[in-house]
Amino acid sequence: MLTVTILGNNSALPAYGRNPTAQVLQTPEESFLIDCGEGTQVRLLQYKIKTSRISHIFISHLHGDHYFGLIALLSSMALQNRQQPVHLHAPAALEKLIQLQLDVAEATLSFPLHFHAHEQAEIIADTPTVTVSCFPMQHRIPCWGFVFTEKKNLRKIDPVRVQSYGVPPTYYNRLQQGEDYIHPKGTIVPNSELTIEAEPPKRYAYCGDTLYTEDILEHIRGVDLLYHETTYLKDFGPKAEKYFHSTTEQAGRIAQQCGAGRLLIGHFSSKYETLECYLEETRAVFPQTELAIEGACFKV
Amino acid sequence: MLTVTILGNNSALPAYGRNPTAQVLQTPEESFLIDCGEGTQVRLLQYKIKTSRISHIFISHLHGDHYFGLIALLSSMALQNRQQPVHLHAPAALEKLIQLQLDVAEATLSFPLHFHAHEQAEIIADTPTVTVSCFPMQHRIPCWGFVFTEKKNLRKIDPVRVQSYGVPPTYYNRLQQGEDYIHPKGTIVPNSELTIEAEPPKRYAYCGDTLYTEDILEHIRGVDLLYHETTYLKDFGPKAEKYFHSTTEQAGRIAQQCGAGRLLIGHFSSKYETLECYLEETRAVFPQTELAIEGACFKV
Repeated sequence: MLTVTILGNNSALPAYGRNPTAQVLQTPEESFLIDCGEGTQVRLLQYKIKTSRISHIFISHLHGDHYFGLIALLSSMALQNRQQPVHLHAPAALEKLIQLQLDVAEATLSFPLHFHAHEQAEIIADTPTVTVSCFPMQHRIPCWGFVFTEKKNLRKIDPVRVQSYGVPPTYYNRLQQGEDYIHPKGTIVPNSELTIEAEPPKRYAYCGDTLYTEDILEHIRGVDLLYHETTYLKDFGPKAEKYFHSTTEQAGRIAQQCGAGRLLIGHFSSKYETLECYLEETRAVFPQTELAIEGACFKV
Repeated sequence: MLTVTILGNNSALPAYGRNPTAQVLQTPEESFLIDCGEGTQVRLLQYKIKTSRISHIFISHLHGDHYFGLIALLSSMALQNRQQPVHLHAPAALEKLIQLQLDVAEATLSFPLHFHAHEQAEIIADTPTVTVSCFPMQHRIPCWGFVFTEKKNLRKIDPVRVQSYGVPPTYYNRLQQGEDYIHPKGTIVPNSELTIEAEPPKRYAYCGDTLYTEDILEHIRGVDLLYHETTYLKDFGPKAEKYFHSTTEQAGRIAQQCGAGRLLIGHFSSKYETLECYLEETRAVFPQTELAIEGACFKV
């Protein structure tokens, strides 16, 4: 099971209690942090999300509202004497910046920080529960989107069938992996007789700061849940283009064209105290849309 | 009038809703930010303190809990199209770090940022309302304390006397500056006949992260309000020494020895959910002690 919790949903500045961009994607075993605006560590504390489970951090681009909280989070992990490694996937320049911040403090991290620079559209992480790929967005500076794909789920044991065939429980793990049952007397019972198809693996796409661009469609086709930025309302198309951002309508069109199951919108402008306007406009194009409200948790 | 508002009082990590170090010193005309831990801009918003009035920022040292919020604050000022300059007084290495953070974002600030590196104990700022001097503390990395001295206050007009001598109101400004009154007929009335001594200028000292050291006494002697860090309770003297911090008892002794009017303590450990223990222990040495509670405002 994959869930996304929103830690920050505002663009550029904190406003009306809303914070700069950050999200955490969780499986029962691992957590993945996506972007890390200022104060992300405080929101993780507030929502009781354990930083010890975060194995990989993905930074889309080096505008401050997407990464200013990172060095503070890494420093806090070190102060808590973390030992497990962190894999940091980010634009190349961030590595030098982190090193400089450690150097001026005469500090070292207590854990290995493995840095992986984004280079091209490819698989960038392969963990026990997901694979992650990145692809380029179109923003004022290099910016990357991410797709998280759940690993194949285990087949489900059919309790009635296994009992009727007398399969011992010690065999269940192998059945879940798809193996047939071989009876001690040599009879073979096909796996399909004993188990039920697992739920298909879920996919989550994160499309941070970007112009409206159909170039991303090939990477996000058919995802179950799509996050796409909507900095501007639909009447601000030229402004969105000028600042390399998207409108509500454009996010809806991307969701429609890639065949997403649902759409999550965020990166709201500090001009708006309430967000219903974003939701209404986007739902007019793509009805299965939700607001990325801070603290809300979405099942992928 | 000088007031200090506490924006963050915790050491190292945010905990129990407490935030890393930051304070703002205000006169009716100007504001001065002292240290700038992560999330300082959010607290400024929360306490309705206008960033437009902040003319000078003083950073004591380059441990993250004292400056990680700075780049975010400067970026937000630029997004709001600030034009007035900011004077940043900090350890030299911070200049390169800020430039690198701007470079990776391909960003520039909308206002002039004048960088002043701490070099030796001296006057580092002379504004319309205060002079500021810095002096070295003893910490794991170079760390600086600051003393803010109000400019001489204006003498107060004695309303009965000026009337009895027939001084025209257009002359009052000159009287407040200390001038004598010269009657059109040539008679001289000494200033002391017409005005009352102004309140003596107030002094505020900020002693951030430091070992107990009597070397600072010469710089902070007789200040009206002294902020001194108290990371540890009195029984943790050896630990305080190991990490270059001070205990409650040591802060109280510094206040006593320098003849401070009052003492403000902060930089609390994340081990303690409540802070009464800090207050009790320090007051046992120096009764005029207050806790640097976030949001609280102290008249110097």
